[in-house]
Amino acid sequence: MAAPSGSKRLRFMRRSIRERVPPLLTDLYQFTMAYAYWRAKRHQEPAVFELFFRDAPFGGGFSLFAGLTDCLLFLREFRFSDEDMDFLSSVMPPDTDSAFFQFLRGLDCSGVSLRSVPEGSVVFARTPLMEVAGPLAVVQLLETSLLCLVNYASLVCSNAARFRLAAGPSKKLLEMGLRRAQGPDGGLSASRYTYIGGFDLTSNVQAGFLFGIPVAGTMAHSYVTSFGSLEEVWPQTLVALNGDPDPVNVVSLTKGWLSRVCKLLAAEPGKIREGELAAFLTYAIAYPQNFLPVIDSYSVGCSGLLNFCAVALMLCELGYRPMGVRLDSGDLCKQSLEVRRVFTLCCKHFSIPAFDSLVIVGTNNISEQSMVELSKKENEINTVGVGTHLVTCTKQPSLGCVYKLVEVRGRPRMKISEDPEKSTLPGRKSVYRLLDSEGYPFLDLVSLVGEPAPQAGLPLSCFPLGCDGASTSVTAAQVICLRQEVFINGEIWKPLESMAVTRAKVQSSIQTLHVRHKRLQEPESYTVALSESLHKLVTEIQTDSSSSSSILLAN
Amino acid sequence: MAAPSGSKRLRFMRRSIRERVPPLLTDLYQFTMAYAYWRAKRHQEPAVFELFFRDAPFGGGFSLFAGLTDCLLFLREFRFSDEDMDFLSSVMPPDTDSAFFQFLRGLDCSGVSLRSVPEGSVVFARTPLMEVAGPLAVVQLLETSLLCLVNYASLVCSNAARFRLAAGPSKKLLEMGLRRAQGPDGGLSASRYTYIGGFDLTSNVQAGFLFGIPVAGTMAHSYVTSFGSLEEVWPQTLVALNGDPDPVNVVSLTKGWLSRVCKLLAAEPGKIREGELAAFLTYAIAYPQNFLPVIDSYSVGCSGLLNFCAVALMLCELGYRPMGVRLDSGDLCKQSLEVRRVFTLCCKHFSIPAFDSLVIVGTNNISEQSMVELSKKENEINTVGVGTHLVTCTKQPSLGCVYKLVEVRGRPRMKISEDPEKSTLPGRKSVYRLLDSEGYPFLDLVSLVGEPAPQAGLPLSCFPLGCDGASTSVTAAQVICLRQEVFINGEIWKPLESMAVTRAKVQSSIQTLHVRHKRLQEPESYTVALSESLHKLVTEIQTDSSSSSSILLAN
Repeated sequence: MAAPSGSKRLRFMRRSIRERVPPLLTDLYQFTMAYAYWRAKRHQEPAVFELFFRDAPFGGGFSLFAGLTDCLLFLREFRFSDEDMDFLSSVMPPDTDSAFFQFLRGLDCSGVSLRSVPEGSVVFARTPLMEVAGPLAVVQLLETSLLCLVNYASLVCSNAARFRLAAGPSKKLLEMGLRRAQGPDGGLSASRYTYIGGFDLTSNVQAGFLFGIPVAGTMAHSYVTSFGSLEEVWPQTLVALNGDPDPVNVVSLTKGWLSRVCKLLAAEPGKIREGELAAFLTYAIAYPQNFLPVIDSYSVGCSGLLNFCAVALMLCELGYRPMGVRLDSGDLCKQSLEVRRVFTLCCKHFSIPAFDSLVIVGTNNISEQSMVELSKKENEINTVGVGTHLVTCTKQPSLGCVYKLVEVRGRPRMKISEDPEKSTLPGRKSVYRLLDSEGYPFLDLVSLVGEPAPQAGLPLSCFPLGCDGASTSVTAAQVICLRQEVFINGEIWKPLESMAVTRAKVQSSIQTLHVRHKRLQEPESYTVALSESLHKLVTEIQTDSSSSSSILLAN
Repeated sequence: MAAPSGSKRLRFMRRSIRERVPPLLTDLYQFTMAYAYWRAKRHQEPAVFELFFRDAPFGGGFSLFAGLTDCLLFLREFRFSDEDMDFLSSVMPPDTDSAFFQFLRGLDCSGVSLRSVPEGSVVFARTPLMEVAGPLAVVQLLETSLLCLVNYASLVCSNAARFRLAAGPSKKLLEMGLRRAQGPDGGLSASRYTYIGGFDLTSNVQAGFLFGIPVAGTMAHSYVTSFGSLEEVWPQTLVALNGDPDPVNVVSLTKGWLSRVCKLLAAEPGKIREGELAAFLTYAIAYPQNFLPVIDSYSVGCSGLLNFCAVALMLCELGYRPMGVRLDSGDLCKQSLEVRRVFTLCCKHFSIPAFDSLVIVGTNNISEQSMVELSKKENEINTVGVGTHLVTCTKQPSLGCVYKLVEVRGRPRMKISEDPEKSTLPGRKSVYRLLDSEGYPFLDLVSLVGEPAPQAGLPLSCFPLGCDGASTSVTAAQVICLRQEVFINGEIWKPLESMAVTRAKVQSSIQTLHVRHKRLQEPESYTVALSESLHKLVTEIQTDSSSSSSILLAN
């Protein structure tokens, strides 16, 4: 494997993050706000922001959290250049004090710390995922970039996990969405995070290069239709694997097999496409050990399957092992059953055991819904390729993470909205995941930093969100502290995880979920609850706010 | 403006295309197919591919074509490195001949030519947009990258154009979707192509830097909620513009205005948020000429609007000119009317003419549908900001352009499918757009290269697609040749257009469309028709195919 090694890959990713997420790749208002803070001498005030989403994507009960590695690299590399300042000063209002740009020029994330849920964790709506603490102006400037890095990564990773749940554990899943992604970098992110979410393969070669994801793919219809006749087959020979050095003429050999196959299947030879046979033969001659053609460019039953069998039987006769076929249209389940029936028949009739282990790949604009239907029906598909619906997340193309201020100068901050869903939770927090006696998570507890952690086995009173302030008592069999310090004062605090490790964690994290939270349709909503102290703080701020008889007009 | 100049920007874009679209950013099967062609010595055969889409996006009648500039730069820079080859040889089947990698290493697009519809043109389903001609192996390798560059660019550009149509010509449109885009590069593409599609502004600073798009934005809710009291306002003074050098205490001045505003509007001072006033004041002190706060962090009517008026009146008193307000929730139309009523009232009551030209910005998860509804209702919104629905194209997150082989070695190629929609059109083509006597395009004629061009004023028999082969006679008042040679044997053939030029072309191109094709809902489908010769060729190939009594089994 010539893919970059661990450290080489990390070097690439550091360089790449500077190119992909330059510090100007953010909303202008971050700078105008930073300037106003700076003018008011508030820019160094310690502040805390929280990143979370309000609804689980795709109508499901959970999301996966992804994008953390990129966030960490982004924070470590965050620095403005002189060129950035030249441009910025040209678009900021003309009355901006030029000393502000000197301030920005010297800025980095050495004062920033980040606590986060681990990459690849199952997470729920309203649970604070990341806490970003640091000087007010700096943490404000980070908002858009962090959201941009987390939103799509988490969304497409969750989408992949749902396809995996729909497909079951045994099918191989191939991501092949590059041509339909939001441009080149979107395509790379899709390959990377769908692999983490549970896919096995990608068609994207650059994703294999950069991230070590296994790549796959053989041929498109254009390859098949580019051939018109057997005269185009060249060379026409293969050397058998049995050691005989004399090349064998495979065209005549294959024609012989084709006759026998037609006879066995009582097929009409007149409907067989010669160009298709030429395409298959040429490919098989080039790759006798990797023969997996697409067999529905014309007609599976009348042409493609027969041509495949003839070429594959020829390969077997010469000692090679054909791989299988791809179906790219029509009713994949039904066709796969017929294809398998023919494979089994050939296996028995011609005594060719290799035909018993041929692979059937299905690709045909697969959506989550069609994957669910496919899984319910009898089928013989071994590998499913998914493109458009996977990478564009058709069902819900954005996650909607938000980044909200929760504390300034040690004082809790809260956005109070008439829509309670849009209110934020004030203060710095600890987040605990409570598991029941069977090991299933059943509640995320959000408490204030400094409160004692909940104890396993002891009843606990808390206030589930969305229940109009009603309290409930719960007892956890096990308590997990959900977030970790991952970036402290400018330094990445833990070694970055490999993609393979994160990918494994995703699957084990999903496995711990109870089916009532995991099921794709109409899941039970997972409970996120406030501790008594946090609930008290929320109530106080709300009361305080509504009764705040303003002293504004005293003067 | 310190944005890159024309040539500097072009240099950036060339470098950027190599980084964004390295030649390995493609599907693996392009390489396995190229290898099979190479083995069969077919790799140098002249071949022609065509790029088109089968359905106009968003249920509309048209699309815009975008991404051509990137395609041209990509073609010019297309070259593999040794490192690419090292990696590729590790993932290709092990029996791949190593001479193939030497062949790839020497490959470029010097044998490739491209004819294309101009960037920013209105285009229709089934019209061939780009024709890529060159050596078979090379043009096959280009497929995924060209699709990736055209698909999202055209989709998001079309989406922007629909928002523009929904909004009408007078409102300013601001793109602000970076945080919800498919990662960083998706966000940049969104800013770039929505500007081309008819937006005026972006929040994305890097897009301003790279592409010269005007950037805008002032403050978020977090800025407002970060303030708790007027004690946080610093400095508390401003110098009036009238030349008086003594700084004026603006806190007491604003309090005075707030009293008067409350009295005028019969508002309850007790409900006014002191923190919000502090936030507005601090921002106004920093940017007295750019004061445009978000006024719904708490309550527009009870607090935000009153605080705005007080601060804005103070600014006017000192000779400054406040800009306006942003509304970010609730019924934007209704609120804008109330806000405008208050502005007009203040203007008259306090004799402050500047209050008559304040801007109202509306942002609240705007979709195409809500933009349509907004335009129907009475409202006083001047600028609309659109994020998620614009950049993710929620209504249809992929365009589905395809890239199909139409000719090899001078011989037409056609994919014949049981679904006529999925069949391709064989041969190299000319494409003409026929306009009626009022100047509206009414038909795109697809004919074979070498056929005489249709003549204005002369009746023409042709075969509209989707009409089961029925012919029709049409007479054009004007005929436009739709495609141009843009890349010939490795060279970009025309100077690359500036974004401003393309953007203007989009609007004039849409303006030529008849409302029956342009309307957002239930447009009439535009006619794309085949010339008699092309229709004859299609019929011949189809007949030939169904009657092709194979000689396969003669041997």
